[in-house]
Amino acid sequence: MEFWGTEVKVGEVVKVDPEEIEAYVHLSQAALGESKKDKANEPVVLHLKVGDQKIVLGTLSRDKIPQTTLDVVLDKEFELSHSSKSSSVFFCGYKALIPDVEEYPGHY
Amino acid sequence: MEFWGTEVKVGEVVKVDPEEIEAYVHLSQAALGESKKDKANEPVVLHLKVGDQKIVLGTLSRDKIPQTTLDVVLDKEFELSHSSKSSSVFFCGYKALIPDVEEYPGHY
Amino acid sequence: MEFWGTEVKVGEVVKVDPEEIEAYVHLSQAALGESKKDKANEPVVLHLKVGDQKIVLGTLSRDKIPQTTLDVVLDKEFELSHSSKSSSVFFCGYKALIPDVEEYPGHY
Amino acid sequence: MEFWGTEVKVGEVVKVDPEEIEAYVHLSQAALGESKKDKANEPVVLHLKVGDQKIVLGTLSRDKIPQTTLDVVLDKEFELSHSSKSSSVFFCGYKALIPDVEEYPGHY
Amino acid sequence: MEFWGTEVKVGEVVKVDPEEIEAYVHLSQAALGESKKDKANEPVVLHLKVGDQKIVLGTLSRDKIPQTTLDVVLDKEFELSHSSKSSSVFFCGYKALIPDVEEYPGHY
Repeated sequence: MEFWGTEVKVGEVVKVDPEEIEAYVHLSQAALGESKKDKANEPVVLHLKVGDQKIVLGTLSRDKIPQTTLDVVLDKEFELSHSSKSSSVFFCGYKALIPDVEEYPGHY
Repeated sequence: MEFWGTEVKVGEVVKVDPEEIEAYVHLSQAALGESKKDKANEPVVLHLKVGDQKIVLGTLSRDKIPQTTLDVVLDKEFELSHSSKSSSVFFCGYKALIPDVEEYPGHY
Repeated sequence: MEFWGTEVKVGEVVKVDPEEIEAYVHLSQAALGESKKDKANEPVVLHLKVGDQKIVLGTLSRDKIPQTTLDVVLDKEFELSHSSKSSSVFFCGYKALIPDVEEYPGHY
Repeated sequence: MEFWGTEVKVGEVVKVDPEEIEAYVHLSQAALGESKKDKANEPVVLHLKVGDQKIVLGTLSRDKIPQTTLDVVLDKEFELSHSSKSSSVFFCGYKALIPDVEEYPGHY
Repeated sequence: MEFWGTEVKVGEVVKVDPEEIEAYVHLSQAALGESKKDKANEPVVLHLKVGDQKIVLGTLSRDKIPQTTLDVVLDKEFELSHSSKSSSVFFCGYKALIPDVEEYPGHY
Protein backbone atom coordinates (compact mmCIF):
# COMPACT_ATOMS: atom_id res chain seq x y z
CA MET A 1 0.00 0.00 0.00
CA GLU A 2 1.19 3.50 -0.75
CA PHE A 3 0.10 6.94 0.25
CA TRP A 4 -2.24 8.66 -2.17
CA GLY A 5 -3.33 12.26 -1.98
CA THR A 6 -4.33 15.17 -4.16
CA GLU A 7 -5.23 18.82 -3.87
CA VAL A 8 -8.26 19.99 -5.84
CA LYS A 9 -7.94 23.75 -6.29
CA VAL A 10 -10.83 26.20 -6.70
CA GLY A 11 -12.56 25.58 -10.00
CA GLU A 12 -10.43 22.58 -10.92
CA VAL A 13 -11.32 19.00 -11.77
CA VAL A 14 -8.73 16.36 -10.93
CA LYS A 15 -8.83 13.21 -13.06
CA VAL A 16 -7.22 10.01 -11.82
CA ASP A 17 -6.95 6.73 -13.72
CA PRO A 18 -6.33 3.80 -11.37
CA GLU A 19 -5.94 1.41 -14.29
CA GLU A 20 -2.99 3.40 -15.59
CA ILE A 21 -1.15 3.02 -12.30
CA GLU A 22 -2.34 -0.61 -11.92
CA ALA A 23 -3.59 0.19 -8.45
CA TYR A 24 -6.95 0.97 -6.99
CA VAL A 25 -7.34 4.11 -4.96
CA HIS A 26 -8.86 4.00 -1.51
CA LEU A 27 -10.28 7.43 -0.83
CA SER A 28 -10.50 7.92 2.91
CA GLN A 29 -10.41 11.60 3.76
CA ALA A 30 -11.53 14.98 2.42
CA ALA A 31 -10.46 18.20 4.14
CA LEU A 32 -10.91 21.89 3.43
CA GLY A 33 -7.68 23.78 2.90
CA GLU A 34 -6.86 27.13 4.43
CA SER A 35 -8.49 30.29 3.11
CA LYS A 36 -7.74 33.96 3.31
CA LYS A 37 -11.20 35.05 2.31
CA ASP A 38 -13.86 35.96 4.80
CA LYS A 39 -16.83 34.41 3.09
CA ALA A 40 -15.17 31.14 3.65
CA ASN A 41 -18.06 29.61 5.56
CA GLU A 42 -19.97 28.59 2.43
CA PRO A 43 -21.06 24.96 2.18
CA VAL A 44 -18.60 23.08 -0.05
CA VAL A 45 -20.13 20.17 -1.95
CA LEU A 46 -17.72 17.35 -2.87
CA HIS A 47 -18.32 15.75 -6.27
CA LEU A 48 -17.10 12.41 -7.54
CA LYS A 49 -17.65 11.25 -11.11
CA VAL A 50 -17.06 7.62 -12.05
CA GLY A 51 -17.95 6.81 -15.65
CA ASP A 52 -21.42 8.29 -16.11
CA GLN A 53 -22.23 8.33 -12.42
CA LYS A 54 -22.18 11.60 -10.56
CA ILE A 55 -21.99 11.17 -6.82
CA VAL A 56 -22.11 13.71 -4.00
CA LEU A 57 -19.58 12.50 -1.42
CA GLY A 58 -20.54 15.05 1.20
CA THR A 59 -20.62 18.71 2.16
CA LEU A 60 -17.94 20.50 4.14
CA SER A 61 -18.05 23.87 5.90
CA ARG A 62 -15.20 25.70 7.58
CA ASP A 63 -16.95 26.27 10.87
CA LYS A 64 -18.78 23.08 11.47
CA ILE A 65 -17.43 20.30 9.23
CA PRO A 66 -13.90 21.10 8.02
CA GLN A 67 -13.19 17.44 7.12
CA THR A 68 -14.99 14.17 6.65
CA THR A 69 -13.96 10.54 6.59
CA LEU A 70 -14.70 8.50 3.47
CA ASP A 71 -14.30 4.83 2.60
CA VAL A 72 -14.61 4.54 -1.15
CA VAL A 73 -12.65 2.27 -3.49
CA LEU A 74 -11.97 3.51 -7.02
CA ASP A 75 -10.73 1.12 -9.67
CA LYS A 76 -11.66 3.06 -12.84
CA GLU A 77 -11.02 6.58 -14.05
CA PHE A 78 -12.65 9.10 -11.74
CA GLU A 79 -12.91 12.85 -11.35
CA LEU A 80 -12.91 14.87 -8.14
CA SER A 81 -14.24 18.41 -7.90
CA HIS A 82 -15.94 20.71 -5.40
CA SER A 83 -17.99 23.87 -5.17
CA SER A 84 -15.74 26.08 -3.01
CA LYS A 85 -14.90 29.51 -4.32
CA SER A 86 -12.28 30.27 -1.72
CA SER A 87 -10.20 27.24 -0.83
CA SER A 88 -8.79 23.94 -2.00
CA VAL A 89 -10.06 20.58 -0.89
CA PHE A 90 -7.49 17.88 -0.07
CA PHE A 91 -8.39 14.26 -0.70
CA CYS A 92 -6.18 11.49 0.58
CA GLY A 93 -5.98 7.81 1.46
CA TYR A 94 -3.88 5.09 -0.11
CA LYS A 95 -3.47 3.01 -3.21
CA ALA A 96 -2.95 -0.72 -3.41
CA LEU A 97 -1.87 -2.89 -6.31
CA ILE A 98 -4.74 -4.51 -8.16
CA PRO A 99 -4.23 -8.21 -7.45
CA ASP A 100 -4.01 -10.59 -10.37
CA VAL A 101 -7.40 -12.25 -10.01
CA GLU A 102 -6.54 -15.24 -12.14
CA GLU A 103 -3.58 -16.09 -9.96
CA TYR A 104 -5.09 -15.14 -6.60
CA PRO A 105 -8.86 -15.39 -6.98
CA GLY A 106 -9.48 -16.15 -3.33
CA HIS A 107 -7.94 -12.93 -2.11
CA TYR A 108 -9.84 -10.57 -4.28
CA MET B 1 -12.81 -4.42 -5.36
CA GLU B 2 -14.77 -2.01 -7.49
CA PHE B 3 -16.46 1.29 -6.87
CA TRP B 4 -20.14 1.09 -6.08
CA GLY B 5 -22.49 4.03 -5.81
CA THR B 6 -26.10 4.99 -6.36
CA GLU B 7 -28.33 8.03 -6.25
CA VAL B 8 -31.69 7.61 -4.53
CA LYS B 9 -33.96 10.38 -5.79
CA VAL B 10 -36.87 11.93 -3.90
CA GLY B 11 -39.62 9.35 -3.45
CA GLU B 12 -37.66 6.54 -5.07
CA VAL B 13 -36.66 3.11 -3.83
CA VAL B 14 -33.45 1.65 -5.27
CA LYS B 15 -33.24 -2.15 -5.30
CA VAL B 16 -29.88 -3.86 -5.58
CA ASP B 17 -29.28 -7.60 -5.82
CA PRO B 18 -25.71 -8.52 -4.83
CA GLU B 19 -26.27 -12.15 -5.77
CA GLU B 20 -27.03 -11.15 -9.35
CA ILE B 21 -23.69 -9.40 -9.67
CA GLU B 22 -21.90 -12.15 -7.66
CA ALA B 23 -20.44 -9.51 -5.39
CA TYR B 24 -21.30 -8.22 -1.99
CA VAL B 25 -21.78 -4.51 -1.55
CA HIS B 26 -19.95 -2.64 1.16
CA LEU B 27 -22.01 0.44 1.94
CA SER B 28 -19.73 3.04 3.45
CA GLN B 29 -21.15 6.50 2.90
CA ALA B 30 -24.48 8.34 2.66
CA ALA B 31 -24.60 12.01 1.63
CA LEU B 32 -27.36 14.51 0.99
CA GLY B 33 -27.39 15.89 -2.55
CA GLU B 34 -27.80 19.55 -3.41
CA SER B 35 -31.20 21.19 -3.14
CA LYS B 36 -32.77 24.33 -4.52
CA LYS B 37 -35.59 24.39 -2.03
CA ASP B 38 -35.48 26.44 1.13
CA LYS B 39 -37.16 24.01 3.47
CA ALA B 40 -34.24 21.81 2.89
CA ASN B 41 -33.29 21.53 6.54
CA GLU B 42 -35.75 18.73 7.27
CA PRO B 43 -34.37 15.62 8.95
CA VAL B 44 -33.82 12.93 6.31
CA VAL B 45 -34.21 9.38 7.58
CA LEU B 46 -32.24 6.72 5.68
CA HIS B 47 -34.01 3.39 5.27
CA LEU B 48 -32.50 0.02 4.41
CA LYS B 49 -34.62 -3.05 3.78
CA VAL B 50 -32.99 -6.49 3.71
CA GLY B 51 -35.47 -9.35 3.31
CA ASP B 52 -38.14 -8.64 5.92
CA GLN B 53 -35.90 -6.46 8.04
CA LYS B 54 -36.40 -2.72 7.99
CA ILE B 55 -33.42 -0.83 9.34
CA VAL B 56 -32.91 2.88 9.98
CA LEU B 57 -29.31 3.59 8.95
CA GLY B 58 -29.30 7.14 10.26
CA THR B 59 -30.70 10.63 9.92
CA LEU B 60 -29.14 13.42 7.87
CA SER B 61 -29.82 17.15 7.91
CA ARG B 62 -28.42 19.77 5.60
CA ASP B 63 -27.15 22.10 8.30
CA LYS B 64 -25.76 19.78 10.86
CA ILE B 65 -25.21 16.31 9.41
CA PRO B 66 -24.98 16.44 5.59
CA GLN B 67 -23.26 13.01 5.41
CA THR B 68 -22.54 10.00 7.53
CA THR B 69 -20.09 7.13 7.38
CA LEU B 70 -21.48 3.60 7.31
CA ASP B 71 -19.88 0.16 7.41
CA VAL B 72 -22.50 -2.33 6.32
CA VAL B 73 -22.04 -5.43 4.16
CA LEU B 74 -24.92 -6.49 1.94
CA ASP B 75 -24.93 -9.90 0.35
CA LYS B 76 -28.64 -10.31 -0.47
CA GLU B 77 -31.20 -8.17 -2.25
CA PHE B 78 -31.68 -4.87 -0.46
CA GLU B 79 -33.61 -1.65 -0.88
CA LEU B 80 -32.48 1.88 -0.11
CA SER B 81 -34.87 4.78 0.38
CA HIS B 82 -35.12 8.01 2.37
CA SER B 83 -37.62 10.55 3.63
CA SER B 84 -36.34 13.73 1.95
CA LYS B 85 -38.83 15.76 -0.05
CA SER B 86 -36.27 18.07 -1.58
CA SER B 87 -33.05 16.30 -2.45
CA SER B 88 -31.43 13.04 -3.45
CA VAL B 89 -29.31 10.94 -1.15
CA PHE B 90 -26.11 9.42 -2.55
CA PHE B 91 -24.91 6.09 -1.21
CA CYS B 92 -21.49 4.77 -2.10
CA GLY B 93 -18.74 2.35 -1.14
CA TYR B 94 -17.41 -0.64 -3.03
CA LYS B 95 -18.27 -4.13 -4.12
CA ALA B 96 -16.09 -7.21 -3.85
CA LEU B 97 -16.45 -10.60 -5.47
CA ILE B 98 -18.09 -13.18 -3.24
CA PRO B 99 -15.27 -15.68 -2.64
CA ASP B 100 -15.88 -19.31 -3.42
CA VAL B 101 -16.13 -20.61 0.13
CA GLU B 102 -15.61 -24.24 -0.82
CA GLU B 103 -12.30 -23.43 -2.47
CA TYR B 104 -11.11 -20.78 -0.02
CA PRO B 105 -12.89 -21.45 3.29
CA GLY B 106 -10.16 -19.90 5.42
CA HIS B 107 -10.44 -16.52 3.81
CA TYR B 108 -14.12 -16.05 4.21
CA MET C 1 -19.70 -11.91 5.05
CA GLU C 2 -23.41 -11.36 5.48
CA PHE C 3 -25.55 -8.45 6.52
CA TRP C 4 -26.48 -8.36 10.16
CA GLY C 5 -28.95 -5.98 11.74
CA THR C 6 -31.46 -5.76 14.56
CA GLU C 7 -34.04 -3.39 15.95
CA VAL C 8 -34.05 -2.89 19.71
CA LYS C 9 -37.48 -1.57 20.68
CA VAL C 10 -38.29 0.62 23.67
CA GLY C 11 -37.71 -1.35 26.88
CA GLU C 12 -36.44 -4.44 25.10
CA VAL C 13 -33.20 -6.38 25.41
CA VAL C 14 -32.02 -8.22 22.31
CA LYS C 15 -29.82 -11.27 22.93
CA VAL C 16 -27.61 -12.62 20.17
CA ASP C 17 -25.43 -15.71 20.37
CA PRO C 18 -22.66 -15.65 17.74
CA GLU C 19 -21.55 -19.17 18.65
CA GLU C 20 -24.96 -20.53 17.77
CA ILE C 21 -24.72 -19.12 14.27
CA GLU C 22 -20.99 -20.03 14.02
CA ALA C 23 -20.22 -16.48 13.01
CA TYR C 24 -18.91 -13.45 14.79
CA VAL C 25 -20.88 -10.26 14.58
CA HIS C 26 -19.20 -7.03 13.57
CA LEU C 27 -21.27 -4.22 15.06
CA SER C 28 -20.66 -1.10 13.02
CA GLN C 29 -23.59 1.26 13.33
CA ALA C 30 -26.24 2.40 15.82
CA ALA C 31 -29.06 4.71 14.74
CA LEU C 32 -32.12 6.16 16.43
CA GLY C 33 -35.40 5.19 14.80
CA GLU C 34 -38.23 7.57 14.07
CA SER C 35 -40.43 8.84 16.87
CA LYS C 36 -43.83 10.46 17.10
CA LYS C 37 -43.34 11.79 20.58
CA ASP C 38 -42.21 15.32 21.27
CA LYS C 39 -39.92 14.65 24.18
CA ALA C 40 -37.83 12.74 21.77
CA ASN C 41 -34.69 14.75 22.38
CA GLU C 42 -33.68 12.79 25.47
CA PRO C 43 -30.16 11.37 25.54
CA VAL C 44 -30.28 7.68 24.61
CA VAL C 45 -27.57 5.56 26.22
CA LEU C 46 -26.58 2.42 24.31
CA HIS C 47 -25.78 -0.61 26.45
CA LEU C 48 -23.85 -3.72 25.50
CA LYS C 49 -23.51 -6.69 27.83
CA VAL C 50 -20.93 -9.40 27.09
CA GLY C 51 -20.69 -12.07 29.78
CA ASP C 52 -20.41 -10.11 33.02
CA GLN C 53 -19.15 -6.96 31.35
CA LYS C 54 -21.50 -4.02 30.98
CA ILE C 55 -20.29 -1.53 28.40
CA VAL C 56 -21.68 1.85 27.38
CA LEU C 57 -21.24 2.04 23.60
CA GLY C 58 -22.28 5.66 23.31
CA THR C 59 -25.10 8.16 23.69
CA LEU C 60 -27.41 9.28 20.89
CA SER C 61 -29.76 12.26 20.72
CA ARG C 62 -32.27 13.07 18.03
CA ASP C 63 -31.11 16.61 17.42
CA LYS C 64 -27.38 16.36 17.62
CA ILE C 65 -26.22 12.75 17.32
CA PRO C 66 -28.90 10.60 15.64
CA GLN C 67 -26.38 7.86 14.77
CA THR C 68 -22.87 6.75 15.57
CA THR C 69 -20.32 4.48 13.96
CA LEU C 70 -19.00 1.54 15.93
CA ASP C 71 -16.31 -1.06 15.29
CA VAL C 72 -16.84 -3.86 17.76
CA VAL C 73 -16.42 -7.59 17.19
CA LEU C 74 -18.67 -9.95 19.17
CA ASP C 75 -17.89 -13.64 19.31
CA LYS C 76 -19.87 -14.67 22.42
CA GLU C 77 -23.43 -14.18 23.57
CA PHE C 78 -24.22 -10.50 23.97
CA GLU C 79 -27.16 -8.28 24.84
CA LEU C 80 -28.07 -4.93 23.36
CA SER C 81 -30.38 -2.45 25.05
CA HIS C 82 -30.89 1.32 25.34
CA SER C 83 -32.50 3.95 27.52
CA SER C 84 -34.90 5.56 25.04
CA LYS C 85 -38.53 5.86 26.08
CA SER C 86 -39.80 6.95 22.70
CA SER C 87 -38.03 5.20 19.85
CA SER C 88 -36.19 2.11 18.70
CA VAL C 89 -32.46 1.92 18.14
CA PHE C 90 -31.24 0.06 15.06
CA PHE C 91 -27.90 -1.73 15.22
CA CYS C 92 -26.30 -3.11 12.10
CA GLY C 93 -23.08 -4.34 10.54
CA TYR C 94 -22.18 -7.77 9.26
CA LYS C 95 -21.38 -11.26 10.37
CA ALA C 96 -18.52 -13.46 9.19
CA LEU C 97 -17.92 -17.16 9.62
CA ILE C 98 -15.61 -18.01 12.50
CA PRO C 99 -12.56 -19.47 10.76
CA ASP C 100 -11.32 -22.89 11.80
CA VAL C 101 -8.20 -21.84 13.69
CA GLU C 102 -6.61 -25.25 13.62
CA GLU C 103 -6.77 -25.41 9.87
CA TYR C 104 -5.99 -21.76 9.15
CA PRO C 105 -4.07 -20.40 12.14
CA GLY C 106 -2.24 -17.75 10.14
CA HIS C 107 -5.38 -16.02 9.05
CA TYR C 108 -7.00 -15.65 12.39
CA MET D 1 -11.16 -12.11 16.84
CA GLU D 2 -12.78 -11.66 20.20
CA PHE D 3 -14.61 -8.85 21.89
CA TRP D 4 -12.48 -6.65 24.10
CA GLY D 5 -13.78 -3.94 26.41
CA THR D 6 -13.00 -2.25 29.69
CA GLU D 7 -14.45 0.32 32.04
CA VAL D 8 -12.08 2.95 33.37
CA LYS D 9 -13.64 4.39 36.53
CA VAL D 10 -13.08 7.88 37.93
CA GLY D 11 -9.47 8.24 39.07
CA GLU D 12 -8.44 4.77 37.92
CA VAL D 13 -5.72 3.60 35.55
CA VAL D 14 -6.37 0.36 33.70
CA LYS D 15 -3.29 -1.59 32.62
CA VAL D 16 -3.51 -4.17 29.86
CA ASP D 17 -0.70 -6.42 28.64
CA PRO D 18 -1.40 -7.75 25.14
CA GLU D 19 1.70 -9.97 25.26
CA GLU D 20 0.34 -11.80 28.27
CA ILE D 21 -2.82 -12.73 26.40
CA GLU D 22 -0.86 -13.37 23.16
CA ALA D 23 -3.22 -11.07 21.32
CA TYR D 24 -3.06 -7.52 20.17
CA VAL D 25 -5.85 -5.19 21.16
CA HIS D 26 -7.64 -3.12 18.58
CA LEU D 27 -9.06 -0.10 20.40
CA SER D 28 -11.98 1.23 18.40
CA GLN D 29 -14.35 3.11 20.65
CA ALA D 30 -14.38 5.35 23.72
CA ALA D 31 -17.66 6.40 25.33
CA LEU D 32 -18.62 8.38 28.43
CA GLY D 33 -20.64 6.42 30.95
CA GLU D 34 -23.72 7.71 32.71
CA SER D 35 -23.40 10.28 35.49
CA LYS D 36 -25.60 11.48 38.30
CA LYS D 37 -23.68 14.66 38.88
CA ASP D 38 -24.68 17.95 37.41
CA LYS D 39 -21.26 19.31 36.57
CA ALA D 40 -21.01 16.47 34.17
CA ASN D 41 -20.33 18.63 31.16
CA GLU D 42 -16.61 18.97 31.86
CA PRO D 43 -14.24 18.08 29.02
CA VAL D 44 -12.88 14.58 29.57
CA VAL D 45 -9.38 14.01 28.21
CA LEU D 46 -8.54 10.40 27.26
CA HIS D 47 -4.98 9.31 28.01
CA LEU D 48 -3.08 6.37 26.60
CA LYS D 49 0.38 5.40 27.81
CA VAL D 50 2.49 2.94 25.81
CA GLY D 51 5.99 2.42 27.19
CA ASP D 52 7.30 5.94 27.75
CA GLN D 53 4.90 7.54 25.31
CA LYS D 54 1.97 9.53 26.64
CA ILE D 55 -0.71 10.07 24.04
CA VAL D 56 -3.93 12.08 24.16
CA LEU D 57 -6.51 10.01 22.28
CA GLY D 58 -9.18 12.66 22.32
CA THR D 59 -11.54 14.72 24.45
CA LEU D 60 -15.15 13.80 25.21
CA SER D 61 -17.96 15.95 26.62
CA ARG D 62 -21.41 14.84 27.68
CA ASP D 63 -23.30 17.38 25.64
CA LYS D 64 -21.40 17.52 22.42
CA ILE D 65 -19.10 14.52 22.04
CA PRO D 66 -20.25 11.65 24.28
CA GLN D 67 -18.23 9.08 22.26
CA THR D 68 -15.52 8.89 19.66
CA THR D 69 -14.28 6.28 17.24
CA LEU D 70 -10.66 5.18 17.46
CA ASP D 71 -8.51 2.87 15.35
CA VAL D 72 -5.43 2.07 17.37
CA VAL D 73 -3.56 -1.23 17.59
CA LEU D 74 -1.83 -2.08 20.86
CA ASP D 75 0.68 -4.91 21.02
CA LYS D 76 2.58 -4.01 24.19
CA GLU D 77 1.56 -3.14 27.74
CA PHE D 78 -0.54 -0.01 27.81
CA GLU D 79 -2.44 2.12 30.31
CA LEU D 80 -5.76 3.87 29.84
CA SER D 81 -6.93 6.73 32.03
CA HIS D 82 -9.08 9.88 31.77
CA SER D 83 -9.72 13.17 33.48
CA SER D 84 -13.41 12.86 34.35
CA LYS D 85 -14.42 13.49 37.94
CA SER D 86 -17.96 12.28 37.55
CA SER D 87 -18.23 9.29 35.25
CA SER D 88 -16.51 6.24 33.83
CA VAL D 89 -15.19 5.97 30.31
CA PHE D 90 -15.78 2.73 28.43
CA PHE D 91 -13.21 1.58 25.88
CA CYS D 92 -13.96 -1.28 23.55
CA GLY D 93 -12.97 -2.99 20.32
CA TYR D 94 -11.58 -6.45 19.75
CA LYS D 95 -8.49 -8.54 20.22
CA ALA D 96 -6.86 -10.83 17.68
CA LEU D 97 -4.23 -13.49 18.11
CA ILE D 98 -0.71 -12.32 17.32
CA PRO D 99 0.23 -14.37 14.26
CA ASP D 100 3.40 -16.44 14.32
CA VAL D 101 5.55 -14.28 12.05
CA GLU D 102 8.09 -16.98 11.33
CA GLU D 103 5.45 -19.34 10.07
CA TYR D 104 3.28 -16.77 8.32
CA PRO D 105 5.53 -13.82 7.45
CA GLY D 106 3.47 -12.72 4.49
CA HIS D 107 0.33 -12.15 6.51
CA TYR D 108 1.79 -9.96 9.16
CA MET E 1 1.03 -4.76 13.71
CA GLU E 2 2.43 -2.47 16.35
CA PHE E 3 1.25 0.68 18.03
CA TRP E 4 2.52 3.89 16.49
CA GLY E 5 2.07 7.34 17.93
CA THR E 6 3.78 10.70 18.13
CA GLU E 7 3.35 14.06 19.78
CA VAL E 8 3.86 17.12 17.59
CA LYS E 9 4.61 20.05 19.88
CA VAL E 10 3.87 23.72 19.16
CA GLY E 11 6.05 24.90 16.29
CA GLU E 12 7.63 21.51 15.66
CA VAL E 13 7.80 19.33 12.57
CA VAL E 14 8.01 15.59 13.15
CA LYS E 15 9.69 13.57 10.38
CA VAL E 16 9.08 9.85 10.08
CA ASP E 17 10.71 7.49 7.60
CA PRO E 18 8.69 4.29 7.18
CA GLU E 19 11.36 2.79 4.92
CA GLU E 20 13.92 3.02 7.68
CA ILE E 21 11.74 0.98 10.00
CA GLU E 22 10.67 -1.35 7.14
CA ALA E 23 7.06 -0.76 8.07
CA TYR E 24 4.32 1.43 6.72
CA VAL E 25 2.51 3.70 9.10
CA HIS E 26 -1.25 3.71 9.27
CA LEU E 27 -2.27 7.12 10.59
CA SER E 28 -5.68 6.81 12.16
CA GLN E 29 -6.20 9.52 14.75
CA ALA E 30 -5.29 13.14 15.45
CA ALA E 31 -6.16 14.74 18.78
CA LEU E 32 -5.49 18.10 20.39
CA GLY E 33 -3.51 17.93 23.61
CA GLU E 34 -4.34 19.82 26.77
CA SER E 35 -3.67 23.54 27.00
CA LYS E 36 -3.36 26.04 29.80
CA LYS E 37 -3.87 29.06 27.62
CA ASP E 38 -7.22 30.74 27.23
CA LYS E 39 -7.04 31.52 23.56
CA ALA E 40 -7.03 27.85 23.00
CA ASN E 41 -10.08 27.81 20.76
CA GLU E 42 -8.15 28.76 17.61
CA PRO E 43 -8.62 26.49 14.59
CA VAL E 44 -5.67 24.11 14.34
CA VAL E 45 -4.79 23.05 10.80
CA LEU E 46 -3.08 19.64 10.46
CA HIS E 47 -0.39 19.43 7.79
CA LEU E 48 1.08 16.35 6.18
CA LYS E 49 3.99 16.51 3.75
CA VAL E 50 4.86 13.48 1.62
CA GLY E 51 7.65 14.10 -0.89
CA ASP E 52 6.65 17.33 -2.62
CA GLN E 53 3.00 17.00 -1.75
CA LYS E 54 1.54 19.21 0.96
CA ILE E 55 -1.77 17.93 2.25
CA VAL E 56 -4.20 19.41 4.76
CA LEU E 57 -5.48 16.48 6.81
CA GLY E 58 -8.12 18.47 8.66
CA THR E 59 -8.78 21.25 11.14
CA LEU E 60 -9.30 20.75 14.86
CA SER E 61 -10.72 23.14 17.47
CA ARG E 62 -10.86 22.65 21.21
CA ASP E 63 -14.55 23.37 21.59
CA LYS E 64 -16.09 21.67 18.62
CA ILE E 65 -13.66 19.19 17.06
CA PRO E 66 -10.98 18.14 19.57
CA GLN E 67 -10.08 15.01 17.55
CA THR E 68 -10.63 13.48 14.15
CA THR E 69 -10.34 10.02 12.68
CA LEU E 70 -8.00 9.49 9.75
CA ASP E 71 -7.27 6.52 7.51
CA VAL E 72 -4.04 7.28 5.69
CA VAL E 73 -1.23 4.89 4.81
CA LEU E 74 2.31 6.26 4.69
CA ASP E 75 5.11 4.23 3.12
CA LYS E 76 7.66 6.97 2.43
CA GLU E 77 9.25 9.72 4.49
CA PHE E 78 6.61 12.15 5.73
CA GLU E 79 6.36 15.21 7.94
CA LEU E 80 3.60 16.12 10.36
CA SER E 81 3.03 19.65 11.64
CA HIS E 82 0.16 21.89 12.78
CA SER E 83 -0.75 25.51 13.29
CA SER E 84 -1.58 25.55 17.01
CA LYS E 85 0.17 28.12 19.16
CA SER E 86 -0.98 26.71 22.46
CA SER E 87 -1.04 22.93 22.47
CA SER E 88 0.43 19.75 21.03
CA VAL E 89 -1.33 17.52 18.56
CA PHE E 90 -1.10 13.76 19.07
CA PHE E 91 -1.15 11.49 16.05
CA CYS E 92 -1.51 7.76 16.44
CA GLY E 93 -2.42 4.51 14.72
CA TYR E 94 -0.26 1.50 13.97
CA LYS E 95 2.59 0.29 11.83
CA ALA E 96 2.78 -2.95 9.89
CA LEU E 97 5.71 -4.66 8.26
CA ILE E 98 6.02 -3.95 4.57
CA PRO E 99 5.41 -7.37 2.98
CA ASP E 100 8.00 -8.75 0.61
CA VAL E 101 6.11 -8.25 -2.64
CA GLU E 102 8.23 -10.66 -4.64
CA GLU E 103 7.54 -13.48 -2.26
CA TYR E 104 3.92 -12.62 -1.46
CA PRO E 105 2.61 -10.65 -4.44
CA GLY E 106 -0.99 -11.66 -3.95
CA HIS E 107 -1.25 -10.22 -0.47
CA TYR E 108 0.03 -6.81 -1.23
